[in-house]
Amino acid sequence: MPTNAKWLNKVRWDEHGLVPVIAQEAASGDVVMFAWMNREALARTVELGEAVYWSRSRRKLWHKGEESGHTQKVLDIRLDCDEDVVLLRIEQKGGIACHTGRHSCFFQQLKDEDWQAVEPVLQDPATIYSQDKKHP
Amino acid sequence: MPTNAKWLNKVRWDEHGLVPVIAQEAASGDVVMFAWMNREALARTVELGEAVYWSRSRRKLWHKGEESGHTQKVLDIRLDCDEDVVLLRIEQKGGIACHTGRHSCFFQQLKDEDWQAVEPVLQDPATIYSQDKKHP
Repeated sequence: MPTNAKWLNKVRWDEHGLVPVIAQEAASGDVVMFAWMNREALARTVELGEAVYWSRSRRKLWHKGEESGHTQKVLDIRLDCDEDVVLLRIEQKGGIACHTGRHSCFFQQLKDEDWQAVEPVLQDPATIYSQDKKHP
Repeated sequence: MPTNAKWLNKVRWDEHGLVPVIAQEAASGDVVMFAWMNREALARTVELGEAVYWSRSRRKLWHKGEESGHTQKVLDIRLDCDEDVVLLRIEQKGGIACHTGRHSCFFQQLKDEDWQAVEPVLQDPATIYSQDKKHP
């Protein structure tokens, strides 16, 4: 997939060349993750049919699940009205999107003026990653 | 709602003092919008029970629906694992979140290497806004 494709030019990349990306599990409708892509990441995502993000902390392409096995098969790619946000509808392999071992990254709920973890850990993070690596 | 509340300090505001916010319609599960909040916007959202964003273009608080009537009643507020993204579960008044008159802002689908509008306009934008104002 060439990174100068016309459809890639329609995306309004921010000052860092990135676009925010929302990953929504197609079957459940759950929003499971939020990350960023650059032009190459989006091109690779389309090419591969699996989510490839740009890790801002590691400053490199990040094929989601490359270590954990929790890849995201991409079923649908949407762009918003302002062309500056992408929404993926995905199949979440293993049912776990979060590096904490939870289904979704959005497990902290505001309740009684505090953030409370309201979703269970499905898998011990220590057993997810071969090395002691955090979510990039 | 004081803007120095402890739960507001847990949010990892970016270098502009903002956090990305995803708005998901609770009933349908549809992701309808993406916007930004600053500390005051999130405090006001909780206080009001309706989504208040920070308009980066107008550089002011934006009570969603203040012109269109398409307010968003907030049912649930989540924070992600890294504490730098907020997810709202909302009731979308009028069923229209997008300034184009569509249900969702994410109406452009990548298909045959192009973005194609795949959701109908439910209301003529000219009749939504009293003045000729675009989505901030």
